[in-house]
Amino acid sequence: MKQVLEKQKKAKSSGILERLNAGEIVIGDGGFVFALEKRGYVKAGPWTPEAAAEHPEAVRQLHREFLRAGANVMQTFTFYASDDKLENRGNKLALTGAQINEAACDLAREVANEGDALVAGGVSQTPSYLSCKSDKEVKAIFKKQLDVFTKKNVDFLIAEYFEHVEEAVWAVEVLKGSGKPVAATLCIGPEGDMHGNSPGDCAVKLVKAGAQIVGVNCHFDPLTCVKTVKLMKEGVEKAGLKAHYMVQPLAFHTPDCNCQGFIDLPEFPFALEPRILTRWDMHQYAREAYNAGIRYIGGCCGYEPYHIRAVSEELAPERGFLPAASEKHGMWGAGLEMHTKPWVRARARRDYWQNLKPASGRPLCPSMSTPASWGVTRGHADLMQQKEATSKDQLKQLFDRSKNH
Amino acid sequence: MKQVLEKQKKAKSSGILERLNAGEIVIGDGGFVFALEKRGYVKAGPWTPEAAAEHPEAVRQLHREFLRAGANVMQTFTFYASDDKLENRGNKLALTGAQINEAACDLAREVANEGDALVAGGVSQTPSYLSCKSDKEVKAIFKKQLDVFTKKNVDFLIAEYFEHVEEAVWAVEVLKGSGKPVAATLCIGPEGDMHGNSPGDCAVKLVKAGAQIVGVNCHFDPLTCVKTVKLMKEGVEKAGLKAHYMVQPLAFHTPDCNCQGFIDLPEFPFALEPRILTRWDMHQYAREAYNAGIRYIGGCCGYEPYHIRAVSEELAPERGFLPAASEKHGMWGAGLEMHTKPWVRARARRDYWQNLKPASGRPLCPSMSTPASWGVTRGHADLMQQKEATSKDQLKQLFDRSKNH
Amino acid sequence: MKQVLEKQKKAKSSGILERLNAGEIVIGDGGFVFALEKRGYVKAGPWTPEAAAEHPEAVRQLHREFLRAGANVMQTFTFYASDDKLENRGNKLALTGAQINEAACDLAREVANEGDALVAGGVSQTPSYLSCKSDKEVKAIFKKQLDVFTKKNVDFLIAEYFEHVEEAVWAVEVLKGSGKPVAATLCIGPEGDMHGNSPGDCAVKLVKAGAQIVGVNCHFDPLTCVKTVKLMKEGVEKAGLKAHYMVQPLAFHTPDCNCQGFIDLPEFPFALEPRILTRWDMHQYAREAYNAGIRYIGGCCGYEPYHIRAVSEELAPERGFLPAASEKHGMWGAGLEMHTKPWVRARARRDYWQNLKPASGRPLCPSMSTPASWGVTRGHADLMQQKEATSKDQLKQLFDRSKNH
Amino acid sequence: MKQVLEKQKKAKSSGILERLNAGEIVIGDGGFVFALEKRGYVKAGPWTPEAAAEHPEAVRQLHREFLRAGANVMQTFTFYASDDKLENRGNKLALTGAQINEAACDLAREVANEGDALVAGGVSQTPSYLSCKSDKEVKAIFKKQLDVFTKKNVDFLIAEYFEHVEEAVWAVEVLKGSGKPVAATLCIGPEGDMHGNSPGDCAVKLVKAGAQIVGVNCHFDPLTCVKTVKLMKEGVEKAGLKAHYMVQPLAFHTPDCNCQGFIDLPEFPFALEPRILTRWDMHQYAREAYNAGIRYIGGCCGYEPYHIRAVSEELAPERGFLPAASEKHGMWGAGLEMHTKPWVRARARRDYWQNLKPASGRPLCPSMSTPASWGVTRGHADLMQQKEATSKDQLKQLFDRSKNH
Repeated sequence: MKQVLEKQKKAKSSGILERLNAGEIVIGDGGFVFALEKRGYVKAGPWTPEAAAEHPEAVRQLHREFLRAGANVMQTFTFYASDDKLENRGNKLALTGAQINEAACDLAREVANEGDALVAGGVSQTPSYLSCKSDKEVKAIFKKQLDVFTKKNVDFLIAEYFEHVEEAVWAVEVLKGSGKPVAATLCIGPEGDMHGNSPGDCAVKLVKAGAQIVGVNCHFDPLTCVKTVKLMKEGVEKAGLKAHYMVQPLAFHTPDCNCQGFIDLPEFPFALEPRILTRWDMHQYAREAYNAGIRYIGGCCGYEPYHIRAVSEELAPERGFLPAASEKHGMWGAGLEMHTKPWVRARARRDYWQNLKPASGRPLCPSMSTPASWGVTRGHADLMQQKEATSKDQLKQLFDRSKNH
Repeated sequence: MKQVLEKQKKAKSSGILERLNAGEIVIGDGGFVFALEKRGYVKAGPWTPEAAAEHPEAVRQLHREFLRAGANVMQTFTFYASDDKLENRGNKLALTGAQINEAACDLAREVANEGDALVAGGVSQTPSYLSCKSDKEVKAIFKKQLDVFTKKNVDFLIAEYFEHVEEAVWAVEVLKGSGKPVAATLCIGPEGDMHGNSPGDCAVKLVKAGAQIVGVNCHFDPLTCVKTVKLMKEGVEKAGLKAHYMVQPLAFHTPDCNCQGFIDLPEFPFALEPRILTRWDMHQYAREAYNAGIRYIGGCCGYEPYHIRAVSEELAPERGFLPAASEKHGMWGAGLEMHTKPWVRARARRDYWQNLKPASGRPLCPSMSTPASWGVTRGHADLMQQKEATSKDQLKQLFDRSKNH
Repeated sequence: MKQVLEKQKKAKSSGILERLNAGEIVIGDGGFVFALEKRGYVKAGPWTPEAAAEHPEAVRQLHREFLRAGANVMQTFTFYASDDKLENRGNKLALTGAQINEAACDLAREVANEGDALVAGGVSQTPSYLSCKSDKEVKAIFKKQLDVFTKKNVDFLIAEYFEHVEEAVWAVEVLKGSGKPVAATLCIGPEGDMHGNSPGDCAVKLVKAGAQIVGVNCHFDPLTCVKTVKLMKEGVEKAGLKAHYMVQPLAFHTPDCNCQGFIDLPEFPFALEPRILTRWDMHQYAREAYNAGIRYIGGCCGYEPYHIRAVSEELAPERGFLPAASEKHGMWGAGLEMHTKPWVRARARRDYWQNLKPASGRPLCPSMSTPASWGVTRGHADLMQQKEATSKDQLKQLFDRSKNH
Repeated sequence: MKQVLEKQKKAKSSGILERLNAGEIVIGDGGFVFALEKRGYVKAGPWTPEAAAEHPEAVRQLHREFLRAGANVMQTFTFYASDDKLENRGNKLALTGAQINEAACDLAREVANEGDALVAGGVSQTPSYLSCKSDKEVKAIFKKQLDVFTKKNVDFLIAEYFEHVEEAVWAVEVLKGSGKPVAATLCIGPEGDMHGNSPGDCAVKLVKAGAQIVGVNCHFDPLTCVKTVKLMKEGVEKAGLKAHYMVQPLAFHTPDCNCQGFIDLPEFPFALEPRILTRWDMHQYAREAYNAGIRYIGGCCGYEPYHIRAVSEELAPERGFLPAASEKHGMWGAGLEMHTKPWVRARARRDYWQNLKPASGRPLCPSMSTPASWGVTRGHADLMQQKEATSKDQLKQLFDRSKNH
């Protein structure tokens, strides 16, 4: 254990690229909006991160749990924290975007300093892009967030959750201006982005724009995301380029998704429970991501701290140490050796959990859904930015349309 | 909202029995061991609450989330905090039982004071009982925990999670000595306790022993638990007795359980994810519990704060107010009116979520499991207390036996 | 094989009671209306057996297939062949009831003579009873069918498919008049008949009325039916009476049925395919029926000849021989040893098929349904006899009501 | 109805190409080996058609049922009736291949003459091909069967159930020698044949070899087969060629199959019941096949007569008449209007059955399986012809290998 702590200390001084260049595994954290929605601090729908300023203790605690679970990166809780998004759809805020972004940076740094973690400032897709604003206007939005990240001196930057590679390229171009390392992840599956660019083509565009790390996050389950990153890697290598690879998938099973991912599932976002991955699913994910040559391995929506702990435990042989939270677990459920009931003690072993096919307990429910397929992309009237809350009339129209889909 | 706050303030001065006698709904909190296991602070297997002393910030945060979700009771995090249990199965502790119990009382009181909540000190079943220790020995264990609750002046007491009504009666007899109100819940289903006592008979015994509130907690899903409490109520009324009723079920679907509940499911405790209830399942539960005449309605293992929020939202018409965390939600998912995608906005309505049959996303998995059925009860050699961790030989024997079950 | 033929020959001279008294297993045939509906000779809805006269070659062929599969009884294809039923609901017939009943007797006898089988004449529940006609009127209907069975000299009689034990008792009383052995089976489950009589009470009434063989047929799956007959046996034995026991279940899985059985399932009668039992399910059924002390073991709706063959194969050790059709099968799929593909040859073994959990190939479908529960019984206006086809107005009313159930 | 009969009479004089050239829909029959296995006349494993000679009454009856259901083609029951297959794997026959082929031709002709049907002589893949025999040797086998078809003067020829397009081309070349129209169907899915030829390429090869009708049969479910034939059509049209299209799929749902189709499913061939298509699934299939431009629409393994009746009913508007067996059915379950129970009468309507998601009644079973994937093709030692039955040693080796797949 002493040896472990030394290893962790030593790593601490290195930046994200030094670690990846040295062949180290970097474990990401999980998504904050879903976890904090369940804890009562984020509103599903707008999905904005005011809690960073309103309820710092709740955000700090989640950071700390991911850190204890083994995460090497604390992403600032700045998802959808662009001004155009914060003002969108009737959200009236007492806080400025800058205040939220600054509070988020401070919390991430505070907890990162408690262990071996880097701070990453993140930007994500904007309503302005969907509403066909120009590259200048969209870039100005990213720039505003970047100014905070620069002021707060984050360790590197992530452009994440882009459905259109074009907007992601714009984000990378802005972030590159800071001189800090840049990672870029799209929320796409094997079919590519919403404009029909293949994963390989998307990755090439991002690398050419200056991203040193590329991959995907959100929208699809872990195995689908690993498959997509593999396609990206093939594209980059075929183009004679070089990059590091990153994956931060959902913690939900999505075998039935089309190109828009879990947004289209009828269960999104309030009935996804039966799809939540077990920790054992996470072991499989971590192994397959590693085998695919991906070295930045984290999570997105649906991840709870124990999911990240499972990633850390699976990769412990390669990393040489276990995360702090594993003291409260034990590899492959070893803690069960202390259970009162003998038949539960008998489950304290790898092959039991690896082979189990868990039941849903829902005999009236199917195993797969038919996703919605509106197929609208950038510029479609349905996606235009609207500052007011949806009106009753608008909602009624939507209900009627959704029945015919 | 102002009106709401006043109502909450007024309620504050009343004790648990005053509230129930006045016909008020009391909302309980959710289970701590499962929630904190996922957050990295509790070890599954022993399931003991050292974190109250080791990581107070994590326990405080979970209390606060349940409070914000509408809970009127903060249960001290003292589950399995009896000395015989803390020493059990190789668990070597730097902390005494008293230290853990005291820290737990302080945290519960601290957060209760932030809102309209009472503090309840809890005791639960002991390994000593399973190992056939005498009533004197078992009662002495409860008395040690009660001494802390008395010193810390909790508002009332709960004897919970008993598989044998006999041990629960012993606990009630001890707790009554304090003069504080006593609630008692068994972890049984409609088939009754492990000695074959029916729910009605169990409830009568508990009321006769002095419990003012009786019911069930843990081991079964909400609808099964409501059904069991109904049987208890029928028994108590048939005996010409009076009581208040309480239910704190699992947040897992368990249609396939036998009398031992979810412990016997192959998925217990590390692959229960597909069984997690949605918030909409919670609405149905809260309504059915209310309709059954139950007025103390809370949760146990598997509950996250949003599950308690759903209970609060369902019963808001009866209670006259919404909990703080509802500002981050909206009734029946109203927050979705602000979602970017129009087909998701179309989901901001009650009938959508009420009628949805959520898919598991697991086409290779069944919907129900065959529970283990070892059928051992108090006094069986398999259940004898053992301070040492299970040996490799013991584990191998268990594996082999479990294959034949 | 020679020995087998001799055994079969010798058995031939004995009647049904001689066989059962000697401890022999009697294998029944399967249901005709479902099998012939699929073959194009019976109309689902009326379910009447005009095909016996209209298409004798099709009925003869089905008899022959069940005989080859091991059946010892050829039931006359006279289900619902009472005059009141044949005239019911707009069915205009060129044939008299007597013609149909006579043709059915001739076919059953012709094929019975090709092997070791007895001919059983059968009567079943009448619309007259549901419409509250008197016992005199209902008995007159049974008597008309019995006259044909007497004229054609069937070997024994079966009163089957009764939802109300009262009507079954009336049928038994009529059939007893012939002096032939009488079997009586209700289409009930463990909850009892539609008037709330328990299986045990029902059985006692039937035995007292003169039935020598009692049991259940149709409406529930094999394991549920075996459970119900066990309850009947307990009732009969408790009453100090004696009887032989008989079971002829559905070949559909019905874990989700209430007291009305598969009629209430949303899939009835045209989407039951996913529920069809495999031949391996039949092995389990035959064994459990035998272990329960049941010696007349057959089938009802959903049975195809291979299902009866599976019953014969499971009980071959007890009976001492295999049926003719087993030459085209082999125990536990032994014929697969000759398959082209090696991985299919590897399936030619008992443990493979016994342990398989067959997938439905329907990821959008659930595993269980919510049955309709109109709960109407004899005398309810909904069940009154009506000679005309249902009118459009009546149908519309039904559609609307069924939505609210 | 009179009009219908006239239409049928008129059609009678035309051959298969005249019908298809005139834009008529030709409805095929269903598969005989599966249907007759369930009836007790075919041995699963060898799957050979001795019953044509041994039990003509059973084969005649099945032909008649398909005819009544609307089939316009009676395929001779000559599947796997090549001499090399008949001798294969320990099958010792009293009958010569020629005797079986001749008996099958006579039965098909006898029943075809009872209605509006053509007789098609069929050949299928041979063990000789898998064992790497030369084109000369394989062609000689087809020629032997063709001699019988010529002597019996069948109306046209079908080369069906080929996994390798190369062998199908050889068959077409032989059959073309007769001067009769030739249809050719492979048992492949969208991934193409076992040598990796795409469906489009396969179809082009078959058309160039002289087949006037091309398509697929067996191995995959209806919607997958329609998709594959669409790919064939695209290939043929792209190559500037012309053909008619034909589809004869399984009556089993196979969403989980890989390139080898249902042979690889763990449920093959004795636990496929939960996968059986309903008649309503057949309506959808018939419509999609028609919309794809396919005009020869039939069935293969798993089809029962009512499945073909459903195809006929769906296409009745286009064809102008209903088949004889529809008198015992009614469109969209109209016969239910005469059911005793009012809630069943309420099901006599199209939208009820079209929208139903039928439950499996199997809560312990999954919805999909993991197919075996041995991936062996022509020439692999595992597939070499063997006249002897598989030995115990060989079987043991197979069991062990199958566990590791």
